[in-house]
Amino acid sequence: MDWLEVDTSNCSVQRTLDIVGDRWSLLILREAFNGVRRFDDIAQHLRISQSVLARRLRGLVDASILERSAYRGAGTRTRYEYRLTERGMALFPVITGLMQWGDRYLADEQGGSWNVHHRECGRPVEVVVRCTADLEPLDPLHTRTSPGPSARPVNAHGNGAI
Amino acid sequence: MDWLEVDTSNCSVQRTLDIVGDRWSLLILREAFNGVRRFDDIAQHLRISQSVLARRLRGLVDASILERSAYRGAGTRTRYEYRLTERGMALFPVITGLMQWGDRYLADEQGGSWNVHHRECGRPVEVVVRCTADLEPLDPLHTRTSPGPSARPVNAHGNGAI
Repeated sequence: MDWLEVDTSNCSVQRTLDIVGDRWSLLILREAFNGVRRFDDIAQHLRISQSVLARRLRGLVDASILERSAYRGAGTRTRYEYRLTERGMALFPVITGLMQWGDRYLADEQGGSWNVHHRECGRPVEVVVRCTADLEPLDPLHTRTSPGPSARPVNAHGNGAI
Repeated sequence: MDWLEVDTSNCSVQRTLDIVGDRWSLLILREAFNGVRRFDDIAQHLRISQSVLARRLRGLVDASILERSAYRGAGTRTRYEYRLTERGMALFPVITGLMQWGDRYLADEQGGSWNVHHRECGRPVEVVVRCTADLEPLDPLHTRTSPGPSARPVNAHGNGAI
């Protein structure tokens, strides 16, 4: 079965994009990975409207990517902060991969605006696709694909609405 | 300088998302990595309208992620196919990272619908953030961040519109 013959409605890329496949959600995750957790801080740093931010945060909490907890702010109103869950942390390669690509192709002449290092030794990190056996980094031409356990032909149920 | 104090307008994550930060563009790239290159094939597999697909493809070509070439289809009209450039290939960790996350947290009980293997040995691939020195995979807690060469404070020029 070729990819073109596979029903995409249960594709894992697509299901992930159903949750984080928009600019604001991915930028909120960038803030979270950089330790910016408070509603007001995120709103101000992203220059995003409070209503859009509230909606996106709700989506990420519902998907168990962020968890919300109350904290006592300066005023009397209860305020909330949002921390990455284990699921959220597992999106680290995606966010870092977006940064790596931008650093390589879109950065200002002098380089990127933000660096990520190995905490222990201080050396920069990189994102790679690698073989789980020999751990060699692989480009697409050194990989091949095949149907997985839940693959079904596109005609069996029709390609799901996406 | 903390991340919260950094102007995000030249952030590499953000610049990358300006180009591929929408569901359709990322799904078009998924098709490209799976060898689906022809306009009509992409339109049919994604169930996307021809006008939306044409607009997204134009954006990806303008960003030098895909390159367009004519081919002779069944009819008389010239048709086009879209191949990943070197820049496009460099998004492999992002697309594979989205798939890996979906396979882990959102797949059907029996597993994902599509697999990516090392061509040579057949073993599955994985996406990791790793240290460029000792090559150890790193989770976010084993990393730290710092301002890069083009970092500028948020107040110097105001946080750019995003």
